[in-house]
Amino acid sequence: MKKIIILLVSVIVSCALHAQQPARPSLVYTDGFDLNLVGQAFPLSKSYHRIDTALYPEFPPVIKRLLTHSAGLVISFKTNSPRITAKWCVTDSKPGNNMTPIMNKGLDLYIKRDGVWEFAGVGRPEGACNEYVLVQHMNKAEKECLLYLPLYDKVKSLSVGIDSGYQITKGENPYTKKKVALYGSSITQGASASRPGMAYPARLSRDMGIDFINLGLSGNGKMEKVVANMVATIRADAFVLDCFANPSPEEITQRTAYMVKAIRAAHPAAPIILVQTGPRESGNFDSVINQVVRLKNENTRIEFEKLKKEGVQNLYLIRGDELLGRDHEGTTDGVHPNDLGFDRMLQVIKPEMAKILQ
Amino acid sequence: MKKIIILLVSVIVSCALHAQQPARPSLVYTDGFDLNLVGQAFPLSKSYHRIDTALYPEFPPVIKRLLTHSAGLVISFKTNSPRITAKWCVTDSKPGNNMTPIMNKGLDLYIKRDGVWEFAGVGRPEGACNEYVLVQHMNKAEKECLLYLPLYDKVKSLSVGIDSGYQITKGENPYTKKKVALYGSSITQGASASRPGMAYPARLSRDMGIDFINLGLSGNGKMEKVVANMVATIRADAFVLDCFANPSPEEITQRTAYMVKAIRAAHPAAPIILVQTGPRESGNFDSVINQVVRLKNENTRIEFEKLKKEGVQNLYLIRGDELLGRDHEGTTDGVHPNDLGFDRMLQVIKPEMAKILQ
Repeated sequence: MKKIIILLVSVIVSCALHAQQPARPSLVYTDGFDLNLVGQAFPLSKSYHRIDTALYPEFPPVIKRLLTHSAGLVISFKTNSPRITAKWCVTDSKPGNNMTPIMNKGLDLYIKRDGVWEFAGVGRPEGACNEYVLVQHMNKAEKECLLYLPLYDKVKSLSVGIDSGYQITKGENPYTKKKVALYGSSITQGASASRPGMAYPARLSRDMGIDFINLGLSGNGKMEKVVANMVATIRADAFVLDCFANPSPEEITQRTAYMVKAIRAAHPAAPIILVQTGPRESGNFDSVINQVVRLKNENTRIEFEKLKKEGVQNLYLIRGDELLGRDHEGTTDGVHPNDLGFDRMLQVIKPEMAKILQ
Repeated sequence: MKKIIILLVSVIVSCALHAQQPARPSLVYTDGFDLNLVGQAFPLSKSYHRIDTALYPEFPPVIKRLLTHSAGLVISFKTNSPRITAKWCVTDSKPGNNMTPIMNKGLDLYIKRDGVWEFAGVGRPEGACNEYVLVQHMNKAEKECLLYLPLYDKVKSLSVGIDSGYQITKGENPYTKKKVALYGSSITQGASASRPGMAYPARLSRDMGIDFINLGLSGNGKMEKVVANMVATIRADAFVLDCFANPSPEEITQRTAYMVKAIRAAHPAAPIILVQTGPRESGNFDSVINQVVRLKNENTRIEFEKLKKEGVQNLYLIRGDELLGRDHEGTTDGVHPNDLGFDRMLQVIKPEMAKILQ
C-alpha cells in the first residue's frame, strides 16, 4: 500500500513538472544557400568552396583541393529565435594533429551586441554529418548573426535551425568598408586557431569592419603564376601577401615580383602589403630552421626594395620578427600560431593595416 | 649513348652528394622510467598515472580513469645530443573535438636557456604508438630538458631517443621552491591548451619555479569526500581548489567546507586557495548558463566567508569574473580556455599566487 502511494505521488509530481515545462518548439531548418554567404572572392552559386576551381584547370591539384575548404566563409543571417542550431556535413578526412576538430570541421557563431560581434557558441563535429545546438535560451529580440564555416574541410551541405514560430532572414555583409584579398599560407587559412572565428583574417574582419577574403593555402602559398593571375583578377581594394612561409627562399626571389606586378597591372592604385613570415618556434633550438626563415625574410625584403626602386607605388612591408612575441609560447606545434600567437600577430599587423587601409 | 652519359653523370653526382652528408648517427633510446619523472602527488614506481588508484578502491570509476591520464607529468633529463626524439604509446581513444591531438596524446619539449624554460618542439601523435623527432640540429652543449606528457590520455610506454655517441642522464626536479596541490576541473587538467606545456598549471610551474601538481579531473572535480581525503594526504606546501566548474551550486554548498577542513586538519598552516570558476562564454547569450555560473560563484564565496568566520586561517579566494578578459574570445568551445584565455587566467592568478605563496 505504501509503495502504491509513493508511486502515485511520483506520477503526480512528474506530471506537474512536465506541465510546467511547455513542450519545446520543433526546429525549422533553412538551407545556408538561402541566407547570405559572405567571404568568397567571387560570389559562387550554391557552393561553399572559396573559388570555383573548374575555371582554373591549370591550378595544381593540391591548390584546387585547398580552395574547396570553407576557410573564411561566413553565413550572415538575422533571427529572433531563442535557439539556433545547425546541421552540416563535411568529409571524413582525419583532423590534423595540430588542430581541434571544432576548427577543422566545426562551426562558430557570433552575434552582434551594441555594434560589436561577440562569440555565441560552437558547432562541435562528431562525424562527417552533424547536428548541434549552437546557442539557446536567448531573448526574443531580432539578432544579427555570423556563422563561421570550417577552416580545414569542405562543407557539403549546411542548414541553420531555429525554433518554429520565429523568423530567419538573410543578413547583410557586415564588412562594407573595404574588401581585401589576403593570399597566404596555412597560418592565413587559420592553423592553429582553436575555432573558425579565431583565424586571424576573421578577427581582422570583425575588428576592422573590412572584408578580408581568406585565400590561405596550407603549405601551398607559393605564388605560382597561374594563382597570382587569379588573385590579380579579384576586385579588391587592397591585397595582402602573407604567403612567405611556403615558398623556398629562391622561389621568393623568383616569384614575388611577378605576383606584385600582376596585381599592380590590374589595380593601379590598390595598396599591396607583403607580410614577412613570423618566427618558426621549432627553430628556437634547431639552427637549420632558423637559417631558412631568416633567408626567406631577407629575400622578401630584397624583393620589396627592388620593387620600390622600380617605382611600384603603394607597396608596403610588415616585418615578421616580432609577430609571435618573445617568449616562444605562441605556437601549437612550433610553426602554427595558437590563439595567443594570433593575438600577438594582430597586435603588430592591425595598427599597420589600419594606417595603410584608412 | 647520350642517355647513358646522363645516367652516369647522375649516379656520380648522387654519390658525391651522399658522400658529403656524413651518415646520420643511429638513435639510442632510454626508457622514461630511467629518467626523472616529475609531477606526481606521490612518487609511483614505473607508472605514468597521476595517482595509484588501486589504493583508492572507493573512488568513482571515472575518477580512477582520469587519474591515469598523464596531465602535469614531466620527464626531466639532461643531454648533449643535437637530436632528441621520442617513442611513445597511448590508447586508441578518439581525441576530444575541443582538443588538438598534440595536447590530447602528444608530447611537448622545453629546454632551459639562460635560466628560463623555453619551448623546443612537440611530438605529434598519429596513432596509438608513435615515434617523432622533437628537435634536431642543436649545438652539443649539455642541456636541461623537460618533456611534458599528454594531458588527456594514458601513457603506456615512453622512451627518449638521442644520437649515439652522446649522453642522457636524469635531470633534477626543476621546481624546488614549493609544492602546491592543484585540484580542479577539465580546465585544470588542461582543456583546451594547444599542447601539453601550455596547460595553466604547467605555465605556472615554469614561471614561478613551484611544483604545481595537476589534479584536474575533467568534469569530475566534485569534491567527493573520498577524493578530498586523498588530496588532504598530499605533502604539499599549499592547496588550490580550482574545481568549482564541476559541482552543482548545491554540491558547492554541501562539500566545500568538508574538503577545506580535511586539508586544514592535515596541514594546519598551509595556504588554501579557492579559485572561483571563470566566465562560461557559451553563456554570453544563453541566459540559463549564466545564472548557473553566477550561483556557483556566489555559493563558493558564501562557503569561503563562512569558513573564514569559523576561524579557518590562511584561506584565500580568487575571484572568477575576470579570468578570461572581457572580449569573450578566450575559449575554444565556450567553456574551456584556449591559449589566449589561459594567458589571461595567468595574468589574474599568478600575481595573487605569488603574494600568497611567497
